[in-house]
Amino acid sequence: MTFNNRVTRILGIEHPVLLAPMDLVSDGRLAAAVSQAGGLGLIGGGYGDCDWIDRTWREAGNARVGCGFITWSLAKQPAALDRALAHRPAAVMLSFGDPAPFAPAIKAAGARLICQVQTLAQARQAADAGADFVVAQGTEAGGHGQARALFTLLPEIVDALPHVPVIAAGGIADGRGLAAALALGAEGVLLGTRFYASDEAAGHPEAKRRILAAKGDDTARSIVFDLSRRNRWPDPYTGRVLRNRHAERWLGREAELEREQDSVAAAYGEARSKADFDIAAVIAGEACGLIHDLPPAGDIVRRLVAEAARLTVPELRVRP
Amino acid sequence: MTFNNRVTRILGIEHPVLLAPMDLVSDGRLAAAVSQAGGLGLIGGGYGDCDWIDRTWREAGNARVGCGFITWSLAKQPAALDRALAHRPAAVMLSFGDPAPFAPAIKAAGARLICQVQTLAQARQAADAGADFVVAQGTEAGGHGQARALFTLLPEIVDALPHVPVIAAGGIADGRGLAAALALGAEGVLLGTRFYASDEAAGHPEAKRRILAAKGDDTARSIVFDLSRRNRWPDPYTGRVLRNRHAERWLGREAELEREQDSVAAAYGEARSKADFDIAAVIAGEACGLIHDLPPAGDIVRRLVAEAARLTVPELRVRP
Repeated sequence: MTFNNRVTRILGIEHPVLLAPMDLVSDGRLAAAVSQAGGLGLIGGGYGDCDWIDRTWREAGNARVGCGFITWSLAKQPAALDRALAHRPAAVMLSFGDPAPFAPAIKAAGARLICQVQTLAQARQAADAGADFVVAQGTEAGGHGQARALFTLLPEIVDALPHVPVIAAGGIADGRGLAAALALGAEGVLLGTRFYASDEAAGHPEAKRRILAAKGDDTARSIVFDLSRRNRWPDPYTGRVLRNRHAERWLGREAELEREQDSVAAAYGEARSKADFDIAAVIAGEACGLIHDLPPAGDIVRRLVAEAARLTVPELRVRP
Repeated sequence: MTFNNRVTRILGIEHPVLLAPMDLVSDGRLAAAVSQAGGLGLIGGGYGDCDWIDRTWREAGNARVGCGFITWSLAKQPAALDRALAHRPAAVMLSFGDPAPFAPAIKAAGARLICQVQTLAQARQAADAGADFVVAQGTEAGGHGQARALFTLLPEIVDALPHVPVIAAGGIADGRGLAAALALGAEGVLLGTRFYASDEAAGHPEAKRRILAAKGDDTARSIVFDLSRRNRWPDPYTGRVLRNRHAERWLGREAELEREQDSVAAAYGEARSKADFDIAAVIAGEACGLIHDLPPAGDIVRRLVAEAARLTVPELRVRP
């Protein structure tokens, strides 16, 4: 059950399993639980709400955790990075935008720089910016992402960047996924939806219930939920969520939705405040079809590595 | 390097590697080369051109091969199935539509029924129709398909159908892909683009050259090429091709393309006849970024299994 590769060694962790920094869901408590189980928890710094970051980091207690940000949003409020760095994170993960402007401060603070990418071109950009790790995120992932699927994106990035350890994300929920990612060249995995469906995750109980009930066929990637909450992302990012009544109504009618955004956004905001998930989106990936329980996050980490160890040759568990 | 599982045993082959029945590209010569190397070649019966099937099957000589059809097209010309069955195929693969009407004839002829699916719901339909094998095809694949990615679709189908051996397709080009597919629960793989880029494949040399030059970022899934050749498929099928000048012009403008279909189709047809691949589509999947040479198809089979064997625990190579 021992893993020893560049991800475990450089991050100083026992298991090459990272918590995706899900906005509002990956709080200090969940991040701490993942780190205490031997992985690395990343707090969801999201758009850069400094007060939330301070507050939730205290909930992590003494656990050694990191933090993730939405890069294009961080560019509008760079102070959030300083606030995170003041907590001495083990690592900072940047996703969705050019990481170069933030790399020097992260490295100067002694944190490792993890860059999540969705294309080969972005992976090269991340390596040029000095990324210590590249996360190859497939389109399977919940929340924001792009179109390329993990099965080809991952080995293509591994081949292009032999000197940068690559972590796989998107669609991984069990030890089979970890074993497959290792076979494709990854040295670690980063999981969102699987940890959303955990005891500690700061998600609504009804959202968790819907993730357990959903099959992989029940998600869709679109801009419907961003338009509905008046939070249009830069192209070409889209978001994967569970299909619900609202999604079925608007998928394929995005131009019309944009014209009716005022009235839709009002109703959508109300639905969010009431946790009405027939309208408000549950942000989850295709892996929901592989998730059937709500265990403590530490159990998820332990199960994942135990199952993967059985499916993986020693050479993939221990690498120079 | 020995594989022994339900796919190798039931199909009577040495290696669990199948040639995707690519329309016009997977001819008798290519199918025979894959079978002679220990895999199973499937002739691309495509839309059901009986004369082409007869002609190309003769090119396979004495090799034991199978044949694949587009199910919704076969429904319009069921005689093509009889023509294929007269050649005593080892297996018939049906993709894109309800296989139930054709299952009895295939089984009565002593051929194995392989059903390719793109969703969990379709996998259940295939099992109900009596499929001997289900091919889980991810969105990574070249040509027609749907949106779900292999990394989650595959284990979800494996879990849902424990009594049906599952074969992985879409995005697999090397032994890493075979090893990853085995870890996710597959007992075999089916490859298209990798065999397109082989010596024997009946594709245009310039098309093959473009596959070698392309990165995985250079493909797109859309209905542009179907509209351009006046061959609109039933919803929700789309086709993945290499991005070229024509694709860049029309992606995202499909409604306009449909209005201008008459003039576009004329120019498109002329480009196809002249092998002008700035306009005519090269049908290829995301795996193009992992393909760098044009070997004989038999070498592809041998490399794939040798590399996968090194990456795979014995329990995944030999299964009860």
